[in-house]
Amino acid sequence: MIKKTTIFLSLLLHIHIVLASDPDPLHDYCIPIPEFSSVFPSCKNSTLVTVEDFVYSGIRNPGDFKQTGFASNPVNSGVFPGLHTLGMSFVRADFDAGGVNVPHLHPRATETTFVLEGRIYAGFVDSSNRIFARVLERGEVMVFPRGLVHFQMNVGDSPATILGSFNSQNPGLVKIPSAVFGSSIREEVLMKAFGFSDKEVDRLRKKFAPH
Amino acid sequence: MIKKTTIFLSLLLHIHIVLASDPDPLHDYCIPIPEFSSVFPSCKNSTLVTVEDFVYSGIRNPGDFKQTGFASNPVNSGVFPGLHTLGMSFVRADFDAGGVNVPHLHPRATETTFVLEGRIYAGFVDSSNRIFARVLERGEVMVFPRGLVHFQMNVGDSPATILGSFNSQNPGLVKIPSAVFGSSIREEVLMKAFGFSDKEVDRLRKKFAPH
Amino acid sequence: MIKKTTIFLSLLLHIHIVLASDPDPLHDYCIPIPEFSSVFPSCKNSTLVTVEDFVYSGIRNPGDFKQTGFASNPVNSGVFPGLHTLGMSFVRADFDAGGVNVPHLHPRATETTFVLEGRIYAGFVDSSNRIFARVLERGEVMVFPRGLVHFQMNVGDSPATILGSFNSQNPGLVKIPSAVFGSSIREEVLMKAFGFSDKEVDRLRKKFAPH
Amino acid sequence: MIKKTTIFLSLLLHIHIVLASDPDPLHDYCIPIPEFSSVFPSCKNSTLVTVEDFVYSGIRNPGDFKQTGFASNPVNSGVFPGLHTLGMSFVRADFDAGGVNVPHLHPRATETTFVLEGRIYAGFVDSSNRIFARVLERGEVMVFPRGLVHFQMNVGDSPATILGSFNSQNPGLVKIPSAVFGSSIREEVLMKAFGFSDKEVDRLRKKFAPH
Amino acid sequence: MIKKTTIFLSLLLHIHIVLASDPDPLHDYCIPIPEFSSVFPSCKNSTLVTVEDFVYSGIRNPGDFKQTGFASNPVNSGVFPGLHTLGMSFVRADFDAGGVNVPHLHPRATETTFVLEGRIYAGFVDSSNRIFARVLERGEVMVFPRGLVHFQMNVGDSPATILGSFNSQNPGLVKIPSAVFGSSIREEVLMKAFGFSDKEVDRLRKKFAPH
Amino acid sequence: MIKKTTIFLSLLLHIHIVLASDPDPLHDYCIPIPEFSSVFPSCKNSTLVTVEDFVYSGIRNPGDFKQTGFASNPVNSGVFPGLHTLGMSFVRADFDAGGVNVPHLHPRATETTFVLEGRIYAGFVDSSNRIFARVLERGEVMVFPRGLVHFQMNVGDSPATILGSFNSQNPGLVKIPSAVFGSSIREEVLMKAFGFSDKEVDRLRKKFAPH
Repeated sequence: MIKKTTIFLSLLLHIHIVLASDPDPLHDYCIPIPEFSSVFPSCKNSTLVTVEDFVYSGIRNPGDFKQTGFASNPVNSGVFPGLHTLGMSFVRADFDAGGVNVPHLHPRATETTFVLEGRIYAGFVDSSNRIFARVLERGEVMVFPRGLVHFQMNVGDSPATILGSFNSQNPGLVKIPSAVFGSSIREEVLMKAFGFSDKEVDRLRKKFAPH
Repeated sequence: MIKKTTIFLSLLLHIHIVLASDPDPLHDYCIPIPEFSSVFPSCKNSTLVTVEDFVYSGIRNPGDFKQTGFASNPVNSGVFPGLHTLGMSFVRADFDAGGVNVPHLHPRATETTFVLEGRIYAGFVDSSNRIFARVLERGEVMVFPRGLVHFQMNVGDSPATILGSFNSQNPGLVKIPSAVFGSSIREEVLMKAFGFSDKEVDRLRKKFAPH
Repeated sequence: MIKKTTIFLSLLLHIHIVLASDPDPLHDYCIPIPEFSSVFPSCKNSTLVTVEDFVYSGIRNPGDFKQTGFASNPVNSGVFPGLHTLGMSFVRADFDAGGVNVPHLHPRATETTFVLEGRIYAGFVDSSNRIFARVLERGEVMVFPRGLVHFQMNVGDSPATILGSFNSQNPGLVKIPSAVFGSSIREEVLMKAFGFSDKEVDRLRKKFAPH
Repeated sequence: MIKKTTIFLSLLLHIHIVLASDPDPLHDYCIPIPEFSSVFPSCKNSTLVTVEDFVYSGIRNPGDFKQTGFASNPVNSGVFPGLHTLGMSFVRADFDAGGVNVPHLHPRATETTFVLEGRIYAGFVDSSNRIFARVLERGEVMVFPRGLVHFQMNVGDSPATILGSFNSQNPGLVKIPSAVFGSSIREEVLMKAFGFSDKEVDRLRKKFAPH
Repeated sequence: MIKKTTIFLSLLLHIHIVLASDPDPLHDYCIPIPEFSSVFPSCKNSTLVTVEDFVYSGIRNPGDFKQTGFASNPVNSGVFPGLHTLGMSFVRADFDAGGVNVPHLHPRATETTFVLEGRIYAGFVDSSNRIFARVLERGEVMVFPRGLVHFQMNVGDSPATILGSFNSQNPGLVKIPSAVFGSSIREEVLMKAFGFSDKEVDRLRKKFAPH
Repeated sequence: MIKKTTIFLSLLLHIHIVLASDPDPLHDYCIPIPEFSSVFPSCKNSTLVTVEDFVYSGIRNPGDFKQTGFASNPVNSGVFPGLHTLGMSFVRADFDAGGVNVPHLHPRATETTFVLEGRIYAGFVDSSNRIFARVLERGEVMVFPRGLVHFQMNVGDSPATILGSFNSQNPGLVKIPSAVFGSSIREEVLMKAFGFSDKEVDRLRKKFAPH
């Protein structure tokens, strides 16, 4: 009995991420059981599902601003279980004047971004290093293809807000500066890749080191 | 030569819809050539692609209201070619006070709906006829699973607006009242299905007949 | 120990639906374990799998007829576990003379229907409300695209039978009359959507209310 | 002008197969234009589509029997264009008493087979060479997973008929005897693979050589 | 309590294969927990994941040769857990002079084969029984489409080695000789399918019977 | 007639990329017609297909080395048409001692990399900026999940070679240094994103500007 308990508890401690696949759900919906969502990729009995499982109220207001004058609130199936197996998610991002969403990409989704407020310089870079960028006005929409580097900057005088939508329940986020300089890639690789001196790489690594 | 010309012209007249498949694009993007998009599912030479191909500016303002106090502006890859092969699209819908988006469904996509303005009673019905519905406030988001009947009504005192996003470049739209009563399904089928008299069916068919 | 037992038992009570995804199975087959299929999406050890797991014998005879002169026996992976992960399922439907399969749709599958016996008026309605319908004779096959409203009626003098096949292990079923009128959508929505009076809506809601 | 004509004509001569992908159609349907389906993967203008595009009447009767007492009539999107992009197809097969559908497989689809008439010994072999086989009675259904070898034989005294359904518009068919012995694989490979003498291989190659 | 323990233990005994789906991972990666991978399709807590989970060192040397002068070492997600959910796997195969990889197919993947060393006669047979085969030199690559019969033979004087890659984490393997003759398909089926006498079938069945 | 010629010629000039979708091919194979592959996504008549369409001989030797001591030869469906619709491609990369494959990612594929020769320091960075990296010896294999930043460096004393395989016919390639600094993203975005001065950004932009 003891062994089994140990196994089970160690299971609860060791397992973190739930697995599933985006395309073609097999049910109308599948709401993971909160306490167990990290252990079993199972769905609540449908009689326990309520409308609150399908509504998200956490992006009515801006998030906390960081140093860069930028705050984002990504809403994937981890924070909004109703999205589980349905192949969609979204994000609200707010910008102070001059605020920047650094060059980044989503490895598992295309994004459509709608400007809720303000003027946003936005763009992406394709596989041949061509840039497609311009200033978006309120109500305009831009699409960023899956896996390509993109960015935004508030070029207006007042705060700006955007709403991004994704075609994956968990699109992922790779922020280029911290992925490249904050992840302990060997100094020589970065020196050769960017033409930096060892001091320059050191400075960048310190700046983007995880806290 | 004549035969070839005839063939080619008849081709241009007869072909309408371009075929492609949502998942897993094979290129960074593929902008159909406007004049030919209805004939060949080909992509513009990338040197001719510009940032304007990836930005949509047509939903900055509400659409024209119909009798029901509802106006929608669906933006799929047909009207916004930049979405082609990227597996996403969106819609703006505006409601007068009391305006209704009739029960409908999208055969090829899940939808996430964000309330831009106003108070919206929204919901969907699952395969076992259970309803999940409530009033959404500004900034709240609701998800409608692929292929399920859903609806919205402005229950506030002023106009309301929502932004829907889809995980297909062409989600499709089946409006239940007109699909069922405006499509010339045989009278007997409708009488037996809904328990209507022939007069009731006649009235509904007239109401929803295409003009 | 108690806490673990409680957790485990509550797990067994709360979980109902097993999750998986239609396309691209990862194994030759995966037969869920009967007692646990509702808890863990796991497969029987292959040494315990037998030919009976891949054969279904439950549609050799007609089902029980309901008031509408129609009986259907849908066979998805829930009742025929051998279909699990294989992306297919099927249904047998029997019709008394005049019997009707009410307008309905499958949110997750295309259907091909083969007429085993009798004469069936069948059709579907596309996104632009066009109907494609005609009488099918024994041995004819009709295809109903995923997510579109379709229906059948026995227009012969004797019982009729059809066999439908689906490209999903769990296609889902949305019956329009009961989904719309039997699911407690607010009266105002239905009045405005169909142009009904409140009395008409009341009558329909009573007729289609779940028992 | 001449060059263009030449190019175009050579195009018509050289192109044969139309390309598309099974999952997730982008339209309600897409009926290829008959004369051009081999050249452009385009769809008929929807105003030219009729109900006949969605109905197939060619399997009401048995096909012609071959030496083996077996006749099959596979119906993929090539012969029934309405299936195009919808991810399904089907086959009718008739067996004389003792007739055999030789060991074969479908590289792109799972199959569900329904016994319309007669008694059929049917089965498949999994990746570990285990067989799952038994006699099916009228009205029973068996599932054959994608890509696995399967077979049928009429073990009754009278003709038998089955209806197979596939989750691909073009499942493909690999008949083992003719694929292995009728395709000119080098003699040494076959000798070593099966332990045959050169004479035995010769006899088999003659038997299965294409005519 | 006893009942639960029994259930749990019987669960551990009965479950063998873990289920998941190839396309579109929902996470950066998902390393199954070794002791539990057969029970729950769950992922290690990411803090426990190390670089060793993503590196495979088991194909640096040839495998053990069998009678046919052929040794293969297939590496799917079962032996290299880092592949789980990522939709790829691979195989190393070594050939003595004259060694043969018998006609076989992979039901769930296309294969690209790179010749690491030696001269290999390789080919595949399409659905119409056409063969595409020739001798590959070191450094050449051949592609074998999903589900089609293919084979290799070392036609050089010294050992040869190939590296195959698959677009599935578990492509499956159907070896034609043993699947057809080593799986107890009824004698009559094999006699009629190949034109063999009962003695010839007996000999083949003995040769390929599982040990 | 003139108009049509003009249209047709302009079509030939303007179209560049052929569209298709990775998953689930609809045919055994589909070899694009060389002269027309950029115009119509059509397949050669199968009688014109030969074994040479399925064999690639262009990576038997190293490519030309660039300044960084690195040469890569990516083989996607554009250069090896036999891969078209089959969902796979590959790359050969050669490294001088100390040569670096700069941090990069593939937006549409997972990669498995096999070390053909030499000692390679290789790794990737996940969405939470964790690095998984170590030195790979000859014969070892590492997997890089789709869309994540990864890199390699020859840390041995002699040339090194790797073979990468992808689960897309066109995985795409985003080289971080040139995508970020060689694509004319506005100076302010880069200054704020990386904490660079305007002079530092200028230097990087010059270094990575396209020639």
